[in-house]
Amino acid sequence: MSDIDTPAVGGGERVVTAAMLVIGDEILSGRTKDRNIGFVADRLTEIGVDLKEVRVVPDEQDRIVEAVRALSASWDLVFTSGGIGPTHDDITADAVAAAFGVGIDIDPRAEAILRRRLEGRAEVNEARLRMARIPFGADLIEPENGMPGVRIGNVHVMAGVPAVFEAMLKVVLPTLDHGRPMLSETIDAGMGEGLIATPLGAVQKAHPKTVIGSYPYERDGRYATNLVVRARDPGVLAAAVAEVRAMLDEVRNARAAR
Amino acid sequence: MSDIDTPAVGGGERVVTAAMLVIGDEILSGRTKDRNIGFVADRLTEIGVDLKEVRVVPDEQDRIVEAVRALSASWDLVFTSGGIGPTHDDITADAVAAAFGVGIDIDPRAEAILRRRLEGRAEVNEARLRMARIPFGADLIEPENGMPGVRIGNVHVMAGVPAVFEAMLKVVLPTLDHGRPMLSETIDAGMGEGLIATPLGAVQKAHPKTVIGSYPYERDGRYATNLVVRARDPGVLAAAVAEVRAMLDEVRNARAAR
Repeated sequence: MSDIDTPAVGGGERVVTAAMLVIGDEILSGRTKDRNIGFVADRLTEIGVDLKEVRVVPDEQDRIVEAVRALSASWDLVFTSGGIGPTHDDITADAVAAAFGVGIDIDPRAEAILRRRLEGRAEVNEARLRMARIPFGADLIEPENGMPGVRIGNVHVMAGVPAVFEAMLKVVLPTLDHGRPMLSETIDAGMGEGLIATPLGAVQKAHPKTVIGSYPYERDGRYATNLVVRARDPGVLAAAVAEVRAMLDEVRNARAAR
Repeated sequence: MSDIDTPAVGGGERVVTAAMLVIGDEILSGRTKDRNIGFVADRLTEIGVDLKEVRVVPDEQDRIVEAVRALSASWDLVFTSGGIGPTHDDITADAVAAAFGVGIDIDPRAEAILRRRLEGRAEVNEARLRMARIPFGADLIEPENGMPGVRIGNVHVMAGVPAVFEAMLKVVLPTLDHGRPMLSETIDAGMGEGLIATPLGAVQKAHPKTVIGSYPYERDGRYATNLVVRARDPGVLAAAVAEVRAMLDEVRNARAAR
């Protein structure tokens, strides 16, 4: 879609937006392949939150502060992954505190969780206590196991290890404000994009409360296309899907008649 | 690392930086899981280009223009993926032209490639000709098969389908300015981060021309840690790796002695 005819999906309906901030040199170097972006995208789509932006930044305080501020100001919700462990390269909590202009110190609630968790297993040393440092005014995100994440303002600070990130997101999801979930239907066009692009554009124009995406892929060395129609209203979705199917029939018939 | 002691890796050495911009509603909705970020990260690291930022934005002109401008101004090289096909939601070429303040039209070089490619196989229709629209002043990126990508200024505009993205990047890589490749060595710490975080921070401080990352992971329900030491100079790398290994021995001996 262009900036001129961006569809007002579900026109007038409450839409909750979100951004994801992935923090870590290891993602940018390729050493670790991110799995949290796709996970958060799936879960937010399910509950009716629109993920609108993702950024990946290195373990550098200025860059994290800048990204947290930009995303927090632009979107309703922000989720971060990475940089909350006990080592020198774990600077997310400090950067988030700086982004909000608040102090940070060992938090009695987080320290209690840490001591409970380590009891009889490991010593509560200086490094581990670092994980109990929480920006002033923040709430804890407490998964069933492990150390807590942090919510401050609209920013949710979570772990980078996928299993821990997922456990934290599971705790957060039921607490989130959200809109009506986006419904979607996928139609295999059975042909390449080049044959259907023009009539498909017309269908999109006629159904401004839907977003129609066209996703080419290769199958047996030939291009194929998945068309994905998205809308919040089932009736709106069904009408657009019917017109996409009719358009595809028409293109097929026209080709067969030649 | 904090903003105070960010190591000047390879101090004074030429460093070439890059950003990746992923364009597509399908990534933000979770429907498609991105594979291009990890691929570009690996290839750039290999040749000595530092990937410093990634953004994912939807198929919205304003958002693409804003991201292209921001990334192009901040980093030496920018790579985009997605939105260069023939359908109504493929608006990357137009957005990149707008970002650079230049016009866009069907390009004779790109049209010739299109006609050659389609000859005897498919009709050159209006939609397919859309793929030959190239911002004024841009160069073509020509993979062995398929339609070209585009280079304008420091921005490389490439396809979203991973196989096509990879083919285009393969053409671009040998043409890129780059620094000395970052070398890295991974050491399995054999224990959780909490035991080594403090002495590891001291090693990082003593070796400011390296970046030492600590990456926890779960193995059989226990936390383990990979330590990754990175530097451009082999001697600098080896010295830091030796000190990390000595530090780990010391921690192990201290635990055994208790």
